[in-house]
Amino acid sequence: MSTLDNVIADLVVANRILAREDVVDAYGHISLRHPDNPRHFFISRSVSPELVERDDIVELGLDGQPVHEEKRPLYLERFIHAAILEARPDIHAVVHAHAEDILPFGIAQATPLRPVIHSGSFIGANVPVWDIADKFGDTNVLVTNMAQGRDLAKKLGKNAVALMRGHGFASAGRSMIEVVRLSVYLPRNARALMRAKMLGGKIKYLSKGEIDARNAGYSPYSNETWRAWEYWANKAGVGDLLTRPDGGTIYKPGHDHKHDHKHDH
Amino acid sequence: MSTLDNVIADLVVANRILAREDVVDAYGHISLRHPDNPRHFFISRSVSPELVERDDIVELGLDGQPVHEEKRPLYLERFIHAAILEARPDIHAVVHAHAEDILPFGIAQATPLRPVIHSGSFIGANVPVWDIADKFGDTNVLVTNMAQGRDLAKKLGKNAVALMRGHGFASAGRSMIEVVRLSVYLPRNARALMRAKMLGGKIKYLSKGEIDARNAGYSPYSNETWRAWEYWANKAGVGDLLTRPDGGTIYKPGHDHKHDHKHDH
Amino acid sequence: MSTLDNVIADLVVANRILAREDVVDAYGHISLRHPDNPRHFFISRSVSPELVERDDIVELGLDGQPVHEEKRPLYLERFIHAAILEARPDIHAVVHAHAEDILPFGIAQATPLRPVIHSGSFIGANVPVWDIADKFGDTNVLVTNMAQGRDLAKKLGKNAVALMRGHGFASAGRSMIEVVRLSVYLPRNARALMRAKMLGGKIKYLSKGEIDARNAGYSPYSNETWRAWEYWANKAGVGDLLTRPDGGTIYKPGHDHKHDHKHDH
Amino acid sequence: MSTLDNVIADLVVANRILAREDVVDAYGHISLRHPDNPRHFFISRSVSPELVERDDIVELGLDGQPVHEEKRPLYLERFIHAAILEARPDIHAVVHAHAEDILPFGIAQATPLRPVIHSGSFIGANVPVWDIADKFGDTNVLVTNMAQGRDLAKKLGKNAVALMRGHGFASAGRSMIEVVRLSVYLPRNARALMRAKMLGGKIKYLSKGEIDARNAGYSPYSNETWRAWEYWANKAGVGDLLTRPDGGTIYKPGHDHKHDHKHDH
Repeated sequence: MSTLDNVIADLVVANRILAREDVVDAYGHISLRHPDNPRHFFISRSVSPELVERDDIVELGLDGQPVHEEKRPLYLERFIHAAILEARPDIHAVVHAHAEDILPFGIAQATPLRPVIHSGSFIGANVPVWDIADKFGDTNVLVTNMAQGRDLAKKLGKNAVALMRGHGFASAGRSMIEVVRLSVYLPRNARALMRAKMLGGKIKYLSKGEIDARNAGYSPYSNETWRAWEYWANKAGVGDLLTRPDGGTIYKPGHDHKHDHKHDH
Repeated sequence: MSTLDNVIADLVVANRILAREDVVDAYGHISLRHPDNPRHFFISRSVSPELVERDDIVELGLDGQPVHEEKRPLYLERFIHAAILEARPDIHAVVHAHAEDILPFGIAQATPLRPVIHSGSFIGANVPVWDIADKFGDTNVLVTNMAQGRDLAKKLGKNAVALMRGHGFASAGRSMIEVVRLSVYLPRNARALMRAKMLGGKIKYLSKGEIDARNAGYSPYSNETWRAWEYWANKAGVGDLLTRPDGGTIYKPGHDHKHDHKHDH
Repeated sequence: MSTLDNVIADLVVANRILAREDVVDAYGHISLRHPDNPRHFFISRSVSPELVERDDIVELGLDGQPVHEEKRPLYLERFIHAAILEARPDIHAVVHAHAEDILPFGIAQATPLRPVIHSGSFIGANVPVWDIADKFGDTNVLVTNMAQGRDLAKKLGKNAVALMRGHGFASAGRSMIEVVRLSVYLPRNARALMRAKMLGGKIKYLSKGEIDARNAGYSPYSNETWRAWEYWANKAGVGDLLTRPDGGTIYKPGHDHKHDHKHDH
Repeated sequence: MSTLDNVIADLVVANRILAREDVVDAYGHISLRHPDNPRHFFISRSVSPELVERDDIVELGLDGQPVHEEKRPLYLERFIHAAILEARPDIHAVVHAHAEDILPFGIAQATPLRPVIHSGSFIGANVPVWDIADKFGDTNVLVTNMAQGRDLAKKLGKNAVALMRGHGFASAGRSMIEVVRLSVYLPRNARALMRAKMLGGKIKYLSKGEIDARNAGYSPYSNETWRAWEYWANKAGVGDLLTRPDGGTIYKPGHDHKHDHKHDH
């Protein structure tokens, strides 16, 4: 079981990866359930993910309120995390982001977002679309209380991702690594599907059997998963914060050549 | 009320943010009304926004002419700013830019540009398209005098943005932060709408009620707005120029890790 | 009149700008007619534009052959430059590039590439498409001799740009600054037109009168033109090589803040 | 004939180029047949291509298994390389990648991917699409054994590239330089073809004669090929690892100006 220090470090790594991979920008956030107390979770205070440091991480309850006294402003939309973690005991990490490539699928809902590339399998067979207006009418479109958060969690159901109409998405994973991976590949899958539609003709989606086979096969520290996590952490400049609770080796990149880290797409 | 030094610094920050966020490139500019004399405004001399420094800022009158002696060349299109600030006492900052993603909506006008994503609400419910040829026939397509500027301001009316056919856009905000935010999100909203159209089927736009709720909720220094401004300023390398007239705290990014600032999209 | 040293420096600046602005990549080149001998021109030896240095510049005749002994390999396609400079005494600089965004217009010729944005006016009212196969049948698609170069020059006629089917484009300008500016804005105009087509509905092109008004108004050292040239040169890291034969001032960027030069789009 | 040291260095260069040119990201790999023992090949252990160093290169047999004792994890999909090198004695290097722009052509197969730009000629006249489900039903979509690898090699046949439905592509070249070049231009050709389709109307593909003429003309160390290889290696920060078995000169980039290497598109 991760120590709290490693949990905090993981959260910083995850924030930086999501920023580096263009999943989040000025806005967006990620949470991780407290490893020892399922009614609490960790998330940054209100600051952009690219700037998150260890001292920014705060502990909240499943009501979205801070556990300890906290003067610094918190994310207005922390209720997304509180409500999903409350509704889903199987979930330990949640991401909310506005990643551009998924927005059209929440706006023009005639085309369901489904996996078409193998790395998109983690988004699951079904990606529901939640529209805040259905229950709450005209709002500022932000999830700013538990009632809205719970309505979103209800639409998410047992799925991995819910699109939020005209806003972004919320994703849920069994671990930090899994929710980050799924959130990174969600926009790529969206791009591939949009471009396939533009080409025209019959589209071959991943089958249910393929989605299930892939989800059964990957664990957070299986080599294929860890390779990407390690790569993304190094790209984001936080490779030195990596830890592995399973005792596996963390290879350090060599020093033969200066690494020119560019963004991935 | 901001001191003049802070106003000049804000203008430098704003120029750099617009450049860093790809709203402007070699061309484009931003103005800020003089806080004490509404018949004057500040803008850079003719230099690309990415290179603007404090010494480049000049003071112009609402006729677009310099208040003090000025030998260095001025922006040919400063009349956009003069005319809009003249027509709109409620407006304190104006941006003119050629951001690529909005150009198609001025060229193929069958599709009105309207908010489809929540961060696009700031562009307002209506985005008129101004065509210089309607009144002036064949020109070099630049706004180079007050007559043309006033015709543009008339088309803008009470709206936040007017597209300029085959050229770019002009945006107007109640403050520097608000006009920059709206100008950054305008191209993102345009991209989301274009991609939604490409997907096909019914498009859900933001409702008038949603647009109004969002505009009522945000002030320039509300935490959600300030977070983005602070983030963008740091990305653009001008975080140290930030000031807040409302007395709120400006958090300094930590120094745990080297910040690898990439562009946002 | 530029000294030869300034001519060589200009050519290095132009190569670096074209690389930085993504007009050229591993391939592509730019030439400049000898200011004193119209039957000669300058171009780099065969090296990628981003790497061109002063020592790489060679002098060729209008037959595409070196004037002085030259052991280093030359661009296979230097005949594009030789033939256009031969056919067009009014032209002093030529660019050949494969810029991605113009390629579709040479491949799917049903949509003529015409100016739709004001900065695209420099490409002229008419952009012919040259297909090497029309006269030469199956080839390796490269212009590797004077016969092919002259056929391309014939298709270019009096225009500023000719697309080369399945290959790229050739552009011709009255000066170095003008051919670079037109070559930078050509792909942007192509993107705007393609996106306008995707939006659907009637497209408003620049009128002939607008194109003419803009071409009459701009000179290589007019302030609006120089501002972009100066900006691009600084972005490309060669600002210190800039010279102005018209005696105008070259402003040096300030040193208030570290310049984070990102690519423009 | 290259010494083994040069072979290993070439493989490191190739990995870095593929990463820098956005052909691969966290995933993807490249192999090179042993110059002296055709039943062996070299490939990195399981690490992202951008991080590959000389010590990461391992030697495998055509069964995909390591020749020497190896504790570090290997690429799960090394069987792609083993099977293609086994089936094709004419091939000496293989790339597997997920490059985004080719994915739609494997998902919406109504549009065959064929050369439309001259640099796309190297992908060959025919690009088959392999679907792992045809023979193996529901799987995790990865090629994780020789049976799957051989089925892919059978679909590839004598061609240069096979798309892998919902996954990526596998490319085969007579040399390292050739397979990297083809893999870099494959996504560019895909983008040009997709955009040409979006423009609409008749599309002009490269003719068989053009494809053949280009393939006959280029050798790995012909000047046109070497120029790109040298440029890409320098962009990727590994220019100092370059070697040329044909005795040709390797020019060193000058030091007049700081090189600001940006990504190519």
